[in-house]
Amino acid sequence: MRALYKHHAGTELKLDAARALPAVGPRDVLIDVTHAGICGTDRHIWEWDAWAASRIPVGIVTGHEFVGKIVRVGAAVTRYRPGQRVSAEGHISPGTGYNARTGNAHIAESMQILGVDRDGCFAQYVCVPEENVWPVHPSVPDAVAAVLDPLGNAVHTVMSAGVSAKTVLITGVGIIGLMAVTVAKAAGASRIFVTDVNPKRLELAKRLGAAEAYNTYVPPPPREPTGGPHPSQFATPEWIRDIRRATRGDGPDVLLEMSGHPAAIHDGFSALRMGGTAALLGIPSMPFTFDLTNHVVFKAATVLGINGRKMFETWYQMEELLLGGRLELGEIITHELPMEQFAQGFRLMQTGEGIKIVLRIDH
Amino acid sequence: MRALYKHHAGTELKLDAARALPAVGPRDVLIDVTHAGICGTDRHIWEWDAWAASRIPVGIVTGHEFVGKIVRVGAAVTRYRPGQRVSAEGHISPGTGYNARTGNAHIAESMQILGVDRDGCFAQYVCVPEENVWPVHPSVPDAVAAVLDPLGNAVHTVMSAGVSAKTVLITGVGIIGLMAVTVAKAAGASRIFVTDVNPKRLELAKRLGAAEAYNTYVPPPPREPTGGPHPSQFATPEWIRDIRRATRGDGPDVLLEMSGHPAAIHDGFSALRMGGTAALLGIPSMPFTFDLTNHVVFKAATVLGINGRKMFETWYQMEELLLGGRLELGEIITHELPMEQFAQGFRLMQTGEGIKIVLRIDH
Amino acid sequence: MRALYKHHAGTELKLDAARALPAVGPRDVLIDVTHAGICGTDRHIWEWDAWAASRIPVGIVTGHEFVGKIVRVGAAVTRYRPGQRVSAEGHISPGTGYNARTGNAHIAESMQILGVDRDGCFAQYVCVPEENVWPVHPSVPDAVAAVLDPLGNAVHTVMSAGVSAKTVLITGVGIIGLMAVTVAKAAGASRIFVTDVNPKRLELAKRLGAAEAYNTYVPPPPREPTGGPHPSQFATPEWIRDIRRATRGDGPDVLLEMSGHPAAIHDGFSALRMGGTAALLGIPSMPFTFDLTNHVVFKAATVLGINGRKMFETWYQMEELLLGGRLELGEIITHELPMEQFAQGFRLMQTGEGIKIVLRIDH
Amino acid sequence: MRALYKHHAGTELKLDAARALPAVGPRDVLIDVTHAGICGTDRHIWEWDAWAASRIPVGIVTGHEFVGKIVRVGAAVTRYRPGQRVSAEGHISPGTGYNARTGNAHIAESMQILGVDRDGCFAQYVCVPEENVWPVHPSVPDAVAAVLDPLGNAVHTVMSAGVSAKTVLITGVGIIGLMAVTVAKAAGASRIFVTDVNPKRLELAKRLGAAEAYNTYVPPPPREPTGGPHPSQFATPEWIRDIRRATRGDGPDVLLEMSGHPAAIHDGFSALRMGGTAALLGIPSMPFTFDLTNHVVFKAATVLGINGRKMFETWYQMEELLLGGRLELGEIITHELPMEQFAQGFRLMQTGEGIKIVLRIDH
Repeated sequence: MRALYKHHAGTELKLDAARALPAVGPRDVLIDVTHAGICGTDRHIWEWDAWAASRIPVGIVTGHEFVGKIVRVGAAVTRYRPGQRVSAEGHISPGTGYNARTGNAHIAESMQILGVDRDGCFAQYVCVPEENVWPVHPSVPDAVAAVLDPLGNAVHTVMSAGVSAKTVLITGVGIIGLMAVTVAKAAGASRIFVTDVNPKRLELAKRLGAAEAYNTYVPPPPREPTGGPHPSQFATPEWIRDIRRATRGDGPDVLLEMSGHPAAIHDGFSALRMGGTAALLGIPSMPFTFDLTNHVVFKAATVLGINGRKMFETWYQMEELLLGGRLELGEIITHELPMEQFAQGFRLMQTGEGIKIVLRIDH
Repeated sequence: MRALYKHHAGTELKLDAARALPAVGPRDVLIDVTHAGICGTDRHIWEWDAWAASRIPVGIVTGHEFVGKIVRVGAAVTRYRPGQRVSAEGHISPGTGYNARTGNAHIAESMQILGVDRDGCFAQYVCVPEENVWPVHPSVPDAVAAVLDPLGNAVHTVMSAGVSAKTVLITGVGIIGLMAVTVAKAAGASRIFVTDVNPKRLELAKRLGAAEAYNTYVPPPPREPTGGPHPSQFATPEWIRDIRRATRGDGPDVLLEMSGHPAAIHDGFSALRMGGTAALLGIPSMPFTFDLTNHVVFKAATVLGINGRKMFETWYQMEELLLGGRLELGEIITHELPMEQFAQGFRLMQTGEGIKIVLRIDH
Repeated sequence: MRALYKHHAGTELKLDAARALPAVGPRDVLIDVTHAGICGTDRHIWEWDAWAASRIPVGIVTGHEFVGKIVRVGAAVTRYRPGQRVSAEGHISPGTGYNARTGNAHIAESMQILGVDRDGCFAQYVCVPEENVWPVHPSVPDAVAAVLDPLGNAVHTVMSAGVSAKTVLITGVGIIGLMAVTVAKAAGASRIFVTDVNPKRLELAKRLGAAEAYNTYVPPPPREPTGGPHPSQFATPEWIRDIRRATRGDGPDVLLEMSGHPAAIHDGFSALRMGGTAALLGIPSMPFTFDLTNHVVFKAATVLGINGRKMFETWYQMEELLLGGRLELGEIITHELPMEQFAQGFRLMQTGEGIKIVLRIDH
Repeated sequence: MRALYKHHAGTELKLDAARALPAVGPRDVLIDVTHAGICGTDRHIWEWDAWAASRIPVGIVTGHEFVGKIVRVGAAVTRYRPGQRVSAEGHISPGTGYNARTGNAHIAESMQILGVDRDGCFAQYVCVPEENVWPVHPSVPDAVAAVLDPLGNAVHTVMSAGVSAKTVLITGVGIIGLMAVTVAKAAGASRIFVTDVNPKRLELAKRLGAAEAYNTYVPPPPREPTGGPHPSQFATPEWIRDIRRATRGDGPDVLLEMSGHPAAIHDGFSALRMGGTAALLGIPSMPFTFDLTNHVVFKAATVLGINGRKMFETWYQMEELLLGGRLELGEIITHELPMEQFAQGFRLMQTGEGIKIVLRIDH
């Protein structure tokens, strides 16, 4: 089969036109992949950054977001049959241990991740355990079905925080932040405020339903210091005061942190109302100086770490949101390309010309 | 002042053109009422049914839904000042006891209700303790501000059940059931199914966002029994099977019971999915035969009794839903009349020509 | 192998000394049973009541509570190995569908029950899917490990209601009600009140930690009516007034209904405080007249139907409670007999001389 | 009256033998104080640290934990009468705003604190609004009634986290940490692990019910570095591995952080199991380097900032825990002294000879 794999300990991926089919165990399902999404994780692997170099085995087929059709099932498989259109959860759990057995398999120990720890879906065929299969509702288009994994991150964040009849601040509107805007709107958020430093993404966030979109870019201080600290480091930013005016002086009920930037995290917690809830999906690249006293303890905040998506509560919520007809993903999935044009796909992602890129795998 | 009062132990109300102003205690606020809604409770009082005859003191000014302006405050009042446009919660709590002191004053012991236990708002002036005052947001129109009390019942029911990204069945679309449709939609319900026996209300429910509206009227069995039980008593109704088909075979996640009719309650629980949540606002007029075993125990249902609305969590949620701009109340508040035409208001309600009637109290 | 099976469509069970071993599928585990508990369900099967006659296939091996050692595993089993001491959850889920995939497999559709729908554990060997296996902590004695299933019912009820720092009323102290007393105590209930009509069980409940134990037996009215209704039908029973006096006049925070008797259910809800929580495990044998208006709607009660036990959240809670060392099961597990004396075991249960009976299966 | 007040902008307090009685407003209650606890906050005020110097007005009467008898009520007071034995919540809320009106007055805006922002209870008489009064149950001894405020901190932390049938790690067993041990035990924690650097407190924690008590003192690295980082900074401490061994390899379900020390916070989060809950009461004295990525996001932790105690849900929980009879406060309240010996009281606290010190105010 054709497959994109990490051919050396360096940048980019390579197309192998004659990769062997994956082995199908007794409890596995073999899926003919038709569409696959490129994730931020795939970009890290493409760019071979420090994380990728430390984690990714050379030779692996990458990719973990996809939709396709089942073509073969292992001898002990009872739940699915060839012909079904399916996606799959990419976290593969051993099925034992506390979290795996209590509805929280997404944070179980000894998890393997598709396209990271074992061969993934940038290929004509991918193999997953039947426990991981998700049958896709007929009304969901292929391009959307291919990106249920990242959409699930947005849905898990929004649903964990609880946004119904609440004001919501989303710090960071990259791919998942943008998805979170339309998800939060569909899930009943009354008013959504967003921040980012990318004017195009801020515009899109407003079209997706944000009440206000703030550009929080702060120009660096001048080279010749004028004798004191930069004002931006001490004053409450004007945009926070603006949100407070709109919220009885209190600040938003909910913070969805989607950037991983220390400054955005600081601002987000500063804006959050006393007793509010913060759901953190963004991943700071290292420990940083955090004001736990004021941001969490005195604020009586509820802070939720968000990791992956629930298997499979999030998937059901996602299906229901899609059936409800209020999710707007058209402007988020910007490009659909044949798999062979993968290099262009990664380039569109790197330049910011594209947002979510889907590869089509033809036969 | 002018006021509508229960002038005798019988039907209707009477307009007193020279009622004395209410006494204002040190912690009370006197409000110049501009708009007041007619509640189903007021209709019971008008019609002097068994409940009214047992509970309502002759001579009382009725009415408990309103908006107006503060004109005077008692000596120990610290929170409000004359000139503020306000509504008020009609449940007046003593402030002591477990529920009153833990954010659940709406179900506190020794509660007094405005227009039921003490003089109400169908009058030029009404007096309430400052604890009960609700300052109305400037963006909320008077006609809506006058009906925050029943809207609060709908909001408390919807928010207690939790509808975000869920399928919802509403059994009964009277005034509060209709409000619940638009509230559930705004609060993030993905798909709403409703039942009633009134075709006009069912049509309106669809315009407010219901995915399906089922007329559950069952004609009585023929006079000459044909030798067996009526089929409708045993078969699963077609509309339930229809909802199951739309929900993976499971049934709706949430039941909002708004009718109080035993048959609707039975059907609603039959439809509810295993492990679903039922919020009960409708009030059955007497004990009835209920299948606790199948509807609650085996179904592993969560059943929530809904009484009033939270003071003041529900009021904040309501304000936020109104600010979010997705509540559609225009077709629910059908008439606005001068207080002097109160008899017509009650008639519109009794005939079903009107849904929510608001009285305007001019000066 | 030796096994107890339903030999005809009538009462009792029979010992088969040469039953064939169960077939072990690729995902199954074969367990050498050492101890098995007799459940109330087994008594229904023994007595061949209407439910049993309608549900139980003649020829089946009964029993579903047990502990033993794994002796063989199917070809696709990955999680367990021969030699492990294990119990198992008796609800066997297909693994598909909403509840099965969201941590609520205990209420999944198309469930099979061990010893009811397929051969059970009153036998030298029992076969279950590996998903159902529960490895037993070394510190748990065999007699306790054999009754984790019913203990799980008590734990699921108590933990669903939430009893920490709360007052609790338990109506009905049969086997599971007694277990609920010690579980609620260990789980942090501050004060426990119980009702029953059996003085011996009430005494035991007090030894297990109940603050008060009330005998709610009401003698039937005299044959010659004296001209009016029996007083007990209208007055608030003295024991309810006693509980109210002990709870600021409010009533208990939590009701755990363990009897299934309409009168006990009525009393339990009457006693429950406004805004309290009722967890219902007892199974009324048919629909009955229930005051939904006062017991649920006006009371703003939260009512939880309890069915089975969570797979496997309840099992982890149970293990933790056992490790905490505060569960007292010694007086509840009254007899341990060789399997061959099964008839005596059922007799002890029927007469009430025994509470929980464990069969020992020797080799 | 006699009162302890901050007589200058410096250390210590002074006894004024002829302080004027506080003015009693129309909604206020005047209380004859009989017993008052010395809080850590009082010690900060005594020692006049940076926080105290920036916050405390010179001249103020300090103290906020007490019990006494009502001697006078304002003209608009309706809920209490002279003669009642009462304590009071020291956070005085304006009664307006979101948190004040939704059961979360403890984190309301514009809060005043007794003994910090207005005259407190180290005096023969103290004046509080009637909303703040807490009638003390007759069964609670005076010395315990005097320290309900800090006990409430422990109860709010424990009850927010939820410890029923869970393993709990408490980092830091100062006054409130020790109270948390006995509270968690009474509230149903199955096994409690504690850390501190004070051997005497660790011993006491074990007597109060901790399963294990670890001394986490790490000696400073030698002056002459041996060529590499200190091992303690990289290895998982042995005590964490010990807790993991006791908890299926997972770590504790709940972390109660009571120290405010960055190292303890780091260790506590490292120990916490994936998906666990951390309730943070300890107050780091400044922002510090925190590993949000691993401790919160990847861990899928729920982190709860704890501020004060709920008005009055926590107070009811506390009363119930006291009535349940399982709280052991005898060894925590170490000294009871006449108010005149206040200097000795503060000294006992500073040296660590005493834990909780109660002043008796005689008449």
